[in-house]
Amino acid sequence: MKKILITNDDSFEAKGLSVLIDAVKDLGEIYIVAPAFPKSACSHSLTITKPLRFIKLDKNFYKLDDGTPTDCVYLSFPEIFDGKKPDLVLSGINHGANLGEDVTYSGTAGGAMEGALHGIPSIAFSQVLKSFDNPPSEVNWENAKNIARDITKKVLDGKITIPHRHILNVNIPNTKKIKGIKATKLGYRLYGNDAHKHTNPRGEEFYWIGLHPLAFKEENGSDFDAIKNSYVSITPIKLDITGYEALEKLKNEINN
Amino acid sequence: MKKILITNDDSFEAKGLSVLIDAVKDLGEIYIVAPAFPKSACSHSLTITKPLRFIKLDKNFYKLDDGTPTDCVYLSFPEIFDGKKPDLVLSGINHGANLGEDVTYSGTAGGAMEGALHGIPSIAFSQVLKSFDNPPSEVNWENAKNIARDITKKVLDGKITIPHRHILNVNIPNTKKIKGIKATKLGYRLYGNDAHKHTNPRGEEFYWIGLHPLAFKEENGSDFDAIKNSYVSITPIKLDITGYEALEKLKNEINN
Amino acid sequence: MKKILITNDDSFEAKGLSVLIDAVKDLGEIYIVAPAFPKSACSHSLTITKPLRFIKLDKNFYKLDDGTPTDCVYLSFPEIFDGKKPDLVLSGINHGANLGEDVTYSGTAGGAMEGALHGIPSIAFSQVLKSFDNPPSEVNWENAKNIARDITKKVLDGKITIPHRHILNVNIPNTKKIKGIKATKLGYRLYGNDAHKHTNPRGEEFYWIGLHPLAFKEENGSDFDAIKNSYVSITPIKLDITGYEALEKLKNEINN
Amino acid sequence: MKKILITNDDSFEAKGLSVLIDAVKDLGEIYIVAPAFPKSACSHSLTITKPLRFIKLDKNFYKLDDGTPTDCVYLSFPEIFDGKKPDLVLSGINHGANLGEDVTYSGTAGGAMEGALHGIPSIAFSQVLKSFDNPPSEVNWENAKNIARDITKKVLDGKITIPHRHILNVNIPNTKKIKGIKATKLGYRLYGNDAHKHTNPRGEEFYWIGLHPLAFKEENGSDFDAIKNSYVSITPIKLDITGYEALEKLKNEINN
Repeated sequence: MKKILITNDDSFEAKGLSVLIDAVKDLGEIYIVAPAFPKSACSHSLTITKPLRFIKLDKNFYKLDDGTPTDCVYLSFPEIFDGKKPDLVLSGINHGANLGEDVTYSGTAGGAMEGALHGIPSIAFSQVLKSFDNPPSEVNWENAKNIARDITKKVLDGKITIPHRHILNVNIPNTKKIKGIKATKLGYRLYGNDAHKHTNPRGEEFYWIGLHPLAFKEENGSDFDAIKNSYVSITPIKLDITGYEALEKLKNEINN
Repeated sequence: MKKILITNDDSFEAKGLSVLIDAVKDLGEIYIVAPAFPKSACSHSLTITKPLRFIKLDKNFYKLDDGTPTDCVYLSFPEIFDGKKPDLVLSGINHGANLGEDVTYSGTAGGAMEGALHGIPSIAFSQVLKSFDNPPSEVNWENAKNIARDITKKVLDGKITIPHRHILNVNIPNTKKIKGIKATKLGYRLYGNDAHKHTNPRGEEFYWIGLHPLAFKEENGSDFDAIKNSYVSITPIKLDITGYEALEKLKNEINN
Repeated sequence: MKKILITNDDSFEAKGLSVLIDAVKDLGEIYIVAPAFPKSACSHSLTITKPLRFIKLDKNFYKLDDGTPTDCVYLSFPEIFDGKKPDLVLSGINHGANLGEDVTYSGTAGGAMEGALHGIPSIAFSQVLKSFDNPPSEVNWENAKNIARDITKKVLDGKITIPHRHILNVNIPNTKKIKGIKATKLGYRLYGNDAHKHTNPRGEEFYWIGLHPLAFKEENGSDFDAIKNSYVSITPIKLDITGYEALEKLKNEINN
Repeated sequence: MKKILITNDDSFEAKGLSVLIDAVKDLGEIYIVAPAFPKSACSHSLTITKPLRFIKLDKNFYKLDDGTPTDCVYLSFPEIFDGKKPDLVLSGINHGANLGEDVTYSGTAGGAMEGALHGIPSIAFSQVLKSFDNPPSEVNWENAKNIARDITKKVLDGKITIPHRHILNVNIPNTKKIKGIKATKLGYRLYGNDAHKHTNPRGEEFYWIGLHPLAFKEENGSDFDAIKNSYVSITPIKLDITGYEALEKLKNEINN
């Protein structure tokens, strides 16, 4: 039976984690290592400035105090798998979209990236919270569960393949009726600044970083386009993030 | 005069930061916002779970408590630049290499990525600590300073261009005599597991994540190859991390 | 029905907290606000450097992220009691002794002190882990539960009174057979140094502070003496910590 | 020459720390270990949940990352004094009053308490920020320096003695003209609730704990009374915090 490691970035208590566990629990031997606290937007960060502790919550279910998704995957090998590795890493289901260049901030994607760097097929799942329906619906976790299960099964069965040093980044639209699955490229996210100045009772000023609206360039074939049209989006993400076109230009500039 | 924002991930007290400031201080109007504490390996993480505070250290020099390089760049816009943006973002000089897929962990690169997502030309500088000389030399910060200045100047003068939503990732070899500069692709890093189990005085077990040796596949044209041969490596990094080749394959798999 | 607020310093997940809840659940209306993470040895610390968040776990059961026992009590008034106050504050049951001057380090005592400063009768409970039996027994949480219930009931019934700006500090011995309850003074703790130097994988040196052995001056009537002889110890602690004898001497010295 | 260890709770960068260093630098051999970050209101807390690191800033000047004043004193013994102890511990000068029962929250007092528990004469200094002058004056750090020096000198010369397991808690009024020094008891602080509800950009609610006004019962001989009348207040604090009068009553109640 295949060994499936599950992590996330919303912490061991998140609804999305339990949905993911539920979705795949009969597809393999399930192991869960999740952050002790919410780690949203922690990217592919690895904790090397302090030691981390596993706290057992249940059979094959641990929280890592105070770890990121990347730490959870990295440390599962010596702690859970006797120095070996699981057969699959699933990360999520994130509460919120991970689309366009936002993937570079995503702790959910970070957990999957760590799996990929160790040669393990790895998938990041995110549930988009914004709805394009009218009226907007509540998050339909049942949809999310079915999609996560379906894609995981296809990967385990070899119907969907994940190239070496790549991950799959899956986003599930928040809609009553999902129209299908699309393979997409990352969209072009429009970034604003959403910093809120705030004064505490002692008169010290702080900034809270907010989440500016999910604005994108309209582009056929992008992940955002798929979500907007009620499709599940799957984007292959490459760990070699060299800009190859730019590289050719740079070679010329340096030589002149 | 151009406005240059400098950040890093080794904290406001790091030697590499002061070297970078020193290197470029006459090339523009310098602003510094650096993390209050070391944030090594924090990647492109953005802090949304707690508020952050600027602490002024000197004229145009702030530490951000408790911020990442990405936070430093993001919050400099409302706090330092009145909602506008600087003309250039420099991040580093990191104490240690950022080569191959390790760039995905790098807080130094993360700071530069944040600049790039906001349309600002951005460069990440890293000083490789391992030496290929025999006998190994101390870090030659004078070399690092000259290289950082030279590349920054070329970017300001338009001799080196940074495409939209790209950064330059610069690594400086630790060698007495630098042979030149090479435009490179990211190398293929070989990952091991370097987790050290440790028991505290109360008998609780912890893991420290270590830094496994800088092992790479030998590959002409890679950043590692340049460093090994005593060249400065400049790699253009693309923020659109879609795996385009994999995407074509995935489209087929999904449709079958 | 009396409103009883329960907190502790070992976090919302601690066994001792659930034992205390279980012990008193039919003696009043129970409200629980406990730290999100372990806060051992946090003393009477109040968090004023960052904002704190209530996370609801169950009906009338909250964790405070990232709060101390003192914060839990302080913030329960506006959040849980509409600006009013509970009738009783219970803190614990701490995993480990709080005897002698160690009470000045105790987060468990700190939580109770906060209640007392707001005019609420408050009790700190601690379960001694070291056993004086031969052979040593496991912690008998059933004993702890009965003792906590018995003392809480006596305080609610007015059979035991807690003077204004005082708390009761209760320690329960780890023994099969408890001989009774003794009113005690704090003993004289002998302090050593138990700092363990530790080198992390990057070669940085750290200290772990350990818990040196529970050594005391032998003294009749002390809390330590009661515990050693298998009695529950109750010590009234005074929030006015002026050294009155020393004050007389100091007056003379200053005037000369 | 006497060895003097200086710590504080406002961090290594605080003005009050540098004033204290300046005040006593020729009275002994000075060693400084201060928290890496502000630790206001951390009380006598000792950090046992994570390891702590010394970072050298200058000759005999260290910051402890991430330590409390208590940690600073405790760990100075093995790290700075070769397992021996300094001859005097000074803590402060705190930015703000530590009067009445507020002393139980004070990190400044906590640092001094740690010295006292290890048998070292220890003094906590606090600069009251509120002014009773009309118009209110800026903090007069020159006053603070002179007072700190004067009292330290008297303790070193044996003119003021600190009984075993006691500390001296010194508060310096914020006034142009100090009238003298008074030996005082702790006053009776009136506690309100000063919790500010605050909603972050993601809609999550947080509380900031504020500092309610310094209100006290009027009482001759109290520390508050001395400060109000422009006197320096010195209160001896006893580490045995047993409520002895309450103990007699409790004995009766338990036996009936």
